[in-house]
Amino acid sequence: MKTCLDCIPCFFRQALEASRMVSDDENVHKNILQEVAKEFSSICLDESPPSVSRRVHKIVRDLTGNPDPYKEVKDKYNRMALGLYPQLRERVLRSDDPLLASIRMAIAGNIIDFGVGNSFNVEKEIEESVHKEFAVLDYSEFCDLLEKGEEVLYLGDNAGEVVFDRLLIEVIENMNKRVVYAARGMPIINDATLDDAKECGIHKNATELISTGSDAPATVLEFCSPDFIDKFNSAEMIISKGQGNFEALSGENRPIFFLFKVKCPVVAENINHKIGDMVLMNQKL
Amino acid sequence: MKTCLDCIPCFFRQALEASRMVSDDENVHKNILQEVAKEFSSICLDESPPSVSRRVHKIVRDLTGNPDPYKEVKDKYNRMALGLYPQLRERVLRSDDPLLASIRMAIAGNIIDFGVGNSFNVEKEIEESVHKEFAVLDYSEFCDLLEKGEEVLYLGDNAGEVVFDRLLIEVIENMNKRVVYAARGMPIINDATLDDAKECGIHKNATELISTGSDAPATVLEFCSPDFIDKFNSAEMIISKGQGNFEALSGENRPIFFLFKVKCPVVAENINHKIGDMVLMNQKL
Repeated sequence: MKTCLDCIPCFFRQALEASRMVSDDENVHKNILQEVAKEFSSICLDESPPSVSRRVHKIVRDLTGNPDPYKEVKDKYNRMALGLYPQLRERVLRSDDPLLASIRMAIAGNIIDFGVGNSFNVEKEIEESVHKEFAVLDYSEFCDLLEKGEEVLYLGDNAGEVVFDRLLIEVIENMNKRVVYAARGMPIINDATLDDAKECGIHKNATELISTGSDAPATVLEFCSPDFIDKFNSAEMIISKGQGNFEALSGENRPIFFLFKVKCPVVAENINHKIGDMVLMNQKL
Repeated sequence: MKTCLDCIPCFFRQALEASRMVSDDENVHKNILQEVAKEFSSICLDESPPSVSRRVHKIVRDLTGNPDPYKEVKDKYNRMALGLYPQLRERVLRSDDPLLASIRMAIAGNIIDFGVGNSFNVEKEIEESVHKEFAVLDYSEFCDLLEKGEEVLYLGDNAGEVVFDRLLIEVIENMNKRVVYAARGMPIINDATLDDAKECGIHKNATELISTGSDAPATVLEFCSPDFIDKFNSAEMIISKGQGNFEALSGENRPIFFLFKVKCPVVAENINHKIGDMVLMNQKL
């Protein structure tokens, strides 16, 4: 999915929020927005939004000298999600359809996204996601492909959210499948790095934890490592978590299921659904 | 009031909305946002938001070659407001306190503001404004100053909204006062120009119609004509309509009453009130 002009005001908002997260100095914030403005004085709309976002957040890191501006909120949400984990797991495993229940929980965790805004209510989101109807639910296709293969590549999304992903991964592993969980290669917004994934206990459920090798806030293939690309190209089934991964990978000719909550008007328009909608969507080419 | 970094994403949104209003060509929109980005690569936060907005909308006019991008919506809202006028006037004149009732109506008309967004429900706004409690209501000070003087300088705001202002102006003129209505000197966003004010029938109520002489989307004094400045400096009482005029004139040492609806988070924070709040505020220095 290409970047849209409507994304530009949003990138400035993101840059400002990120700047304020690491510095109280308005001059620093101002310098960052000036640099972002320089970046956008030659806009390329051929890139996907996470690819542009990667450059915006690099400016924030470079000008604040802080390699991980969202470290504190990531730690907070990792801990918060781990606190919820036992009760969420029980709820999933006790449900009539643990696979679908864990998909719902994975979508609930998708709300922990500082790229979109900085206020969300995780507990309210969980209750909504349990009951809400899906806008897109390619569930039988999902089950069919899952049934056929032996290994699933799970493209992670945000810190804290990993704990919610673990629920789905546990159910898949219980079906005698291997799940390879891919975290970001470097800190970017509140996306889950290898460290965040470990802190969230991903190793207790996923067979393997790998890195995309990139500092983009999604799986932007051109920035990923050759090892990751090999894994991606040979995967029998890919679960792509989050809106950013959808933005980066929609259109890729791979067996991908996109699992996310619609959180911005540009993506909503792209898939012809509404903000707040829940999506489990088979890659359609 | 100085421009805040939070205003920057909003300026990009405004530029994009204005571009789309005059052209369907995405390349034109893109060129405009690139020029706006160049403008913000050296941000000056000493100016007021309408002063910066003036430069942003000049880019839109220059790059589209359209001197009045909002002409169509201005005409639409002028006509719409004129259609409502007879019933609103009756409502005001029949009320127990026509002055306060007309102030409420003037605030209702303040919703017609394409600087803030492009969707609003005027009829719903009227009903709300009739009943809602004011967040700031310096009414007795307003009445006192009005009583004392002979002439009021009324700083207008948007097209369509002029019709709502006429209600208040009629009540004031009925108190044997003269009202001088100042419209913008050139088209800018959907702000009322002399033509819009005339189309809205301002001459039927105000004693005199003058121009600020400027193309800013508010009364930014540094861009106003010497004639206007003289009028401004010698005014016994000034009614400053709309959020933009507040942004431009708060802090000016003149007998100003600000009359507006709070429509953006930056202004809300500045006056410590909420979006949607109704304000009749004596200039406090």
